[in-house]
Amino acid sequence: MFYHVKELQYHAKPERPDPLFAKKLQEVLGGQFGEISVALQYLFQGWSVRGNGKYKDLLMDTGAEELAHIEMLATMIARLLDGAPVGDLETAAKDPIIGAILGGMNPQHVIVSGLGAMPADSVGNRWTADYIIASGNLLADFRANLNAESQGRLQVVRLYEETNDRGVKDMLSWLIARDTMHQNQWIAAIKELEAKENVVVPSTFPRELEKQEVSYTLFNFSKGNQSAQGRWAHGPSMDGLGQFNYVENPVPLAKKPVLRPAPPYIHDTPPAVLKDTQGLVPPNMK
Amino acid sequence: MFYHVKELQYHAKPERPDPLFAKKLQEVLGGQFGEISVALQYLFQGWSVRGNGKYKDLLMDTGAEELAHIEMLATMIARLLDGAPVGDLETAAKDPIIGAILGGMNPQHVIVSGLGAMPADSVGNRWTADYIIASGNLLADFRANLNAESQGRLQVVRLYEETNDRGVKDMLSWLIARDTMHQNQWIAAIKELEAKENVVVPSTFPRELEKQEVSYTLFNFSKGNQSAQGRWAHGPSMDGLGQFNYVENPVPLAKKPVLRPAPPYIHDTPPAVLKDTQGLVPPNMK
Amino acid sequence: MFYHVKELQYHAKPERPDPLFAKKLQEVLGGQFGEISVALQYLFQGWSVRGNGKYKDLLMDTGAEELAHIEMLATMIARLLDGAPVGDLETAAKDPIIGAILGGMNPQHVIVSGLGAMPADSVGNRWTADYIIASGNLLADFRANLNAESQGRLQVVRLYEETNDRGVKDMLSWLIARDTMHQNQWIAAIKELEAKENVVVPSTFPRELEKQEVSYTLFNFSKGNQSAQGRWAHGPSMDGLGQFNYVENPVPLAKKPVLRPAPPYIHDTPPAVLKDTQGLVPPNMK
Amino acid sequence: MFYHVKELQYHAKPERPDPLFAKKLQEVLGGQFGEISVALQYLFQGWSVRGNGKYKDLLMDTGAEELAHIEMLATMIARLLDGAPVGDLETAAKDPIIGAILGGMNPQHVIVSGLGAMPADSVGNRWTADYIIASGNLLADFRANLNAESQGRLQVVRLYEETNDRGVKDMLSWLIARDTMHQNQWIAAIKELEAKENVVVPSTFPRELEKQEVSYTLFNFSKGNQSAQGRWAHGPSMDGLGQFNYVENPVPLAKKPVLRPAPPYIHDTPPAVLKDTQGLVPPNMK
Amino acid sequence: MFYHVKELQYHAKPERPDPLFAKKLQEVLGGQFGEISVALQYLFQGWSVRGNGKYKDLLMDTGAEELAHIEMLATMIARLLDGAPVGDLETAAKDPIIGAILGGMNPQHVIVSGLGAMPADSVGNRWTADYIIASGNLLADFRANLNAESQGRLQVVRLYEETNDRGVKDMLSWLIARDTMHQNQWIAAIKELEAKENVVVPSTFPRELEKQEVSYTLFNFSKGNQSAQGRWAHGPSMDGLGQFNYVENPVPLAKKPVLRPAPPYIHDTPPAVLKDTQGLVPPNMK
Amino acid sequence: MFYHVKELQYHAKPERPDPLFAKKLQEVLGGQFGEISVALQYLFQGWSVRGNGKYKDLLMDTGAEELAHIEMLATMIARLLDGAPVGDLETAAKDPIIGAILGGMNPQHVIVSGLGAMPADSVGNRWTADYIIASGNLLADFRANLNAESQGRLQVVRLYEETNDRGVKDMLSWLIARDTMHQNQWIAAIKELEAKENVVVPSTFPRELEKQEVSYTLFNFSKGNQSAQGRWAHGPSMDGLGQFNYVENPVPLAKKPVLRPAPPYIHDTPPAVLKDTQGLVPPNMK
Repeated sequence: MFYHVKELQYHAKPERPDPLFAKKLQEVLGGQFGEISVALQYLFQGWSVRGNGKYKDLLMDTGAEELAHIEMLATMIARLLDGAPVGDLETAAKDPIIGAILGGMNPQHVIVSGLGAMPADSVGNRWTADYIIASGNLLADFRANLNAESQGRLQVVRLYEETNDRGVKDMLSWLIARDTMHQNQWIAAIKELEAKENVVVPSTFPRELEKQEVSYTLFNFSKGNQSAQGRWAHGPSMDGLGQFNYVENPVPLAKKPVLRPAPPYIHDTPPAVLKDTQGLVPPNMK
Repeated sequence: MFYHVKELQYHAKPERPDPLFAKKLQEVLGGQFGEISVALQYLFQGWSVRGNGKYKDLLMDTGAEELAHIEMLATMIARLLDGAPVGDLETAAKDPIIGAILGGMNPQHVIVSGLGAMPADSVGNRWTADYIIASGNLLADFRANLNAESQGRLQVVRLYEETNDRGVKDMLSWLIARDTMHQNQWIAAIKELEAKENVVVPSTFPRELEKQEVSYTLFNFSKGNQSAQGRWAHGPSMDGLGQFNYVENPVPLAKKPVLRPAPPYIHDTPPAVLKDTQGLVPPNMK
Repeated sequence: MFYHVKELQYHAKPERPDPLFAKKLQEVLGGQFGEISVALQYLFQGWSVRGNGKYKDLLMDTGAEELAHIEMLATMIARLLDGAPVGDLETAAKDPIIGAILGGMNPQHVIVSGLGAMPADSVGNRWTADYIIASGNLLADFRANLNAESQGRLQVVRLYEETNDRGVKDMLSWLIARDTMHQNQWIAAIKELEAKENVVVPSTFPRELEKQEVSYTLFNFSKGNQSAQGRWAHGPSMDGLGQFNYVENPVPLAKKPVLRPAPPYIHDTPPAVLKDTQGLVPPNMK
Repeated sequence: MFYHVKELQYHAKPERPDPLFAKKLQEVLGGQFGEISVALQYLFQGWSVRGNGKYKDLLMDTGAEELAHIEMLATMIARLLDGAPVGDLETAAKDPIIGAILGGMNPQHVIVSGLGAMPADSVGNRWTADYIIASGNLLADFRANLNAESQGRLQVVRLYEETNDRGVKDMLSWLIARDTMHQNQWIAAIKELEAKENVVVPSTFPRELEKQEVSYTLFNFSKGNQSAQGRWAHGPSMDGLGQFNYVENPVPLAKKPVLRPAPPYIHDTPPAVLKDTQGLVPPNMK
Repeated sequence: MFYHVKELQYHAKPERPDPLFAKKLQEVLGGQFGEISVALQYLFQGWSVRGNGKYKDLLMDTGAEELAHIEMLATMIARLLDGAPVGDLETAAKDPIIGAILGGMNPQHVIVSGLGAMPADSVGNRWTADYIIASGNLLADFRANLNAESQGRLQVVRLYEETNDRGVKDMLSWLIARDTMHQNQWIAAIKELEAKENVVVPSTFPRELEKQEVSYTLFNFSKGNQSAQGRWAHGPSMDGLGQFNYVENPVPLAKKPVLRPAPPYIHDTPPAVLKDTQGLVPPNMK
Repeated sequence: MFYHVKELQYHAKPERPDPLFAKKLQEVLGGQFGEISVALQYLFQGWSVRGNGKYKDLLMDTGAEELAHIEMLATMIARLLDGAPVGDLETAAKDPIIGAILGGMNPQHVIVSGLGAMPADSVGNRWTADYIIASGNLLADFRANLNAESQGRLQVVRLYEETNDRGVKDMLSWLIARDTMHQNQWIAAIKELEAKENVVVPSTFPRELEKQEVSYTLFNFSKGNQSAQGRWAHGPSMDGLGQFNYVENPVPLAKKPVLRPAPPYIHDTPPAVLKDTQGLVPPNMK
């Protein structure tokens, strides 16, 4: 169960409106690695943990914090949109700055949301749960979380570089610090689980049931062998259970598949027509 | 540039048709962590690497291999669909097994693809590039890749548990082994980059520009403090640059936001109407 | 800012597992009118209110409660999935009940979420922010909310009819009661705003700027005039500003549009080719 | 069955081309509350009415009219795009107005549609049936319709404020008037159904089966009690069947959920690993 | 402008309900090549024709007819859903037929639409305008139409094979006949345009501006040369302007791309780190 | 199985960066008819061919080539983004050209992809498998392919008109030539299959089972009879099996549908309420 307090976790006040930046800032609110994504990802992971304990608690802690970040960003975006200009080409023609705003801002910030933040990214794609991950396997999911915080911090840093507004920079520097923590915490949790299980997810599948002859092989499918220089191509594997090896010229291990004809009720191309096309290559083409 | 050979990388032949399993197997072909996702993710990452060298080569090697896995799964699914039965409720009523197939299989495997594999997941959602990640920052992206291979291997293992068909199990045991390698290789690459940069992505943002006072703080937003037990709550941070700390009762650091009224041309609720609602709490409610 | 407590707002415990019902119950968690939709809809509306006061507070209260409902449903679904069977057609063939489960359950509940709830609806469509509405105009948005609670309660009632499990019914009867309240509360808020503004949204657009001659006209575009019997076809309009009227045989008021040819750099069908097709109807076709 | 006449319901002719406004105008053609949405929403509702009569007729009348509105908007957009300029950065650099158009217009209006309207919104999201609602329950659906016309009229009014073109304003003033009518008509229909049934949807669920103790309770989940001032917090409920009440400090009514471990074939985090994390809070953290 | 008549274009009455078939039939209502797709595709193409004449008229004629087909299918689906059973696993366990229906039918047909048709395909994906095509170039678009009618007729034929219901078959045989006509009509229109322009779209791009040396070349990128047997590999090209030729072993024509480093404000992997990876292949790997 | 070589099929080097054009060029990489679409469409069709032979080989050849085109476009876009400027409104205000770039470029090219190409179209919609077609019936699918190459070439030609950069034009002229070939090759393949089967897809459905009385009829549903002038309205049908005919005033062939009431457990509008609305038209309305 959740309680809300009206105060913000941290300040979210720009020096001045900037509808163009409002549009960009949507990315870290409603984009693939925005705050909606991490909030719902952590909560869904937490609700699915079978058993309780510190991992579940950590997920719920962090999920609840991310809800506060959505709120900060929604507030900041609304303020960046304060008094945004409206107009058509005639208006745009009169003043290049107004023109740049009218052409560059997200038109839905006027028409749809009435100067409010939207659950969408910086090009207007609505947020989708396609972005989130919750498998029930904590090691897998903490890796998803570490990735999310890595991509998220990277995006916030890029946005920090794109603005001169001290109020915006102040809020972003908060979010960047929190992402520093969140990367650190997921790394800590991952290390702990890797120590208890092993580095390969899932750790519970019997090794003898996989084709172990290719469990540590790098196939060089991209001509040129710079990839042979990597740690992944020689020496003991990272899970400590094998030796990396490198196959410079990989070959197929199974023959050409031939599929059986479809039954008549499927109305695919009739087998007679297809068969007709399987003759020999005409001599003049060789 | 790409060349195709008609032979398969590995066998993809079931013992017998099973349209229900064909539907499930779609998950690792066209789902969030299916082979289309990893193939295009690695290729897009590779094409975006600014500079060449072993990381780019590794991405292209692995991307090209994943294309071969799409092909194996497409072939397997087509064979699992061989001669799939068709019919309506009347047909279903005659034979419970036929009925289970008719109710449980993906109807698009007959109507849309004519007994072929589809670029879709196990419930029929079409594949979308929402699933893939390529940021230009290799450490961030290799974490995405490690996650993808972790989720992917987990899903293949679950599918392995769901079938009794030796041909299917044989192919899955190949894919499981390859995912073992791919997890190992991304771990190796991540370790190398972490050693060169640092564990926090991006490593190039000046530390003094982030709000360092909260860079290593766990806020306990979920009542109860089991999360205090974790490594993430005390001791040196994983990046070696700070000390984790735990705030049991986090409080807001900014006050309630009050947004300015919208300009008249937005036609939001008129300010007069809103103001009207901000009176005191009636005495009888206290 | 949000705080989470680990206890549930209300019980979420089924009498027994039922993976088929788990799939159906996803509808009111992650469907168009599921709890994710109302939670995020109310929160986004609240964050966008320009001014504070009771409406904003009401939105935040209800949004926070809906987060608790997501949690209850996620918990219930995980329990309905407890120990869900796995298997292929061979397994299905042995026991019709197992077969029905294997064919009818959501395969992603095993493969993807590992027996956890998903942010998706009952057919597996991932939740999308396409479902939510926040315009900045409270009267418009409260109507969206009343609709959401009406559709939502209807769906929960239908699910109530589809189960015999007393634990599930108990939880659903809680959700139904809350939806009763939420319909009542939005009706109360709507009535208040309608009294202050008028029933037509937005109330601030000058009436003389709309084409008032058709502001209260029902055009009978569907042959047959049963629609003439409605209150909407005669008598004073609901906004008290006009008289409804009924046009039995509506006619177009503008002539056939003719679009100018595209410029050559568009490479549409060349005007010469199009012109050629605009001759008279050949005599023998009349 | 439908017949088409080539004449438009109303004029759709701008004074001059304006590709920036063409992009914005797409919102009310192919956006969430655009004309495609209402047309298909009313038609699907009409086709699903079980029984005939005036409500079905009203739905078909209005649905058919909305098809005419799609046509008017498609025509207007094509005309606003007449002779739209093309070019790259070099072209843009020569003339700020051309530059503003090239940067601000929808590039698909040239590349994809060849200066035609698209079934998409103002940021280019393609229309999706996620936007529409048809439940079979007319009171629920008429509320959806009233919301759609409220949001729709609001958006058209905002667009009206964004243009100086008299031809565009003329057409928009027609659409605004029609939305006035449509809001009025759905209000009339809603009032009639509410009088026959009750205000809570669905009206047919036995009251004794819902948890009536919370059917009229406002839970104050958002700290601060401005929401206590509302009509929704005291007095008789809007359905006339209860009394509103306000719970200032709501508490959870069920205990912490503990989910059972997943079966081994799911390969979640092994129970032993999870159990390990559930120890007591270390003394120094208390 | 459109008029609706309440009578159906053709009969849409099944012999008996069949909720499983109702689910399948959704494919040709709301799927990629369902009636919504063709209706909106033809109408959007028609509205975008720049100039009037017979092609525009043909598009509007056919678009309007497809609206009538949506209506027939919506009616048929509602009837196939008449009195559909509801229940949970307990209910399913009692009767294998009921169980098959409960597992196999679309749960949204009960929960969401209340036994009505939905704007969705046979697996529940909501219809999207991603499916439709309107480019302004009629030859291109008529090819899209011919494809749509080919795919559509194929799907209806497959559905015809899946049912024993004479009422359903009767309606499908009408739709199949109409698709016969629509394929014929688009072929006729295509032939006419090809005769006036040429077979390559667009016909207006100057030939000398394309790289004519590869305008008629088949590159054999898939090892094995069965493709050399085709008409496309030798003889005059279909547009009469060149000679087909076959390149058995195609080679790249440009060298390896090397991208410049990203500027620092992008925070990609630092160039120093990347450079580090571009050394020579270690001797032992050669 | 696939092999990659690092060299490009053809040059992909612009004269100078142009982030606005980079955004537009995304259309033919990740849009509806971009290279991802054709690559995956041809590969999926190829993998589903039941039988081998020249058609399958042709599909794999062309699919593999399209992968090379994705690579060329990804490279070109990365180069057009070289050193793209970043900044906010303040930056934009200083220099109109920078302002035009900041407003007009895709913000995700900085924030998300770090100056790399994205699997998205020119307005930022992520690529989706909704775009691709593979039915198992080769005649149907080759028509889809001919359409894809027609739309694709049209889009590339329009982009060619939008740039002055000789490097970009050089690459586009290569893609235009390849699309010339691909249109030619699918036409050749279609002609061959039409000669072996017939022009109507599928060719295997018995003619006597369709309603032959309407197999060659054009219904004039759009008032005005310009469509009567077409070849499709008179003379022998294109399949050689009938005579086209034209129905100037088509009438419905089935009566008004009346659906049965929903069962009570659906909680639709109660039949009593609906029945109430089916009275006679009030005398004063006639």
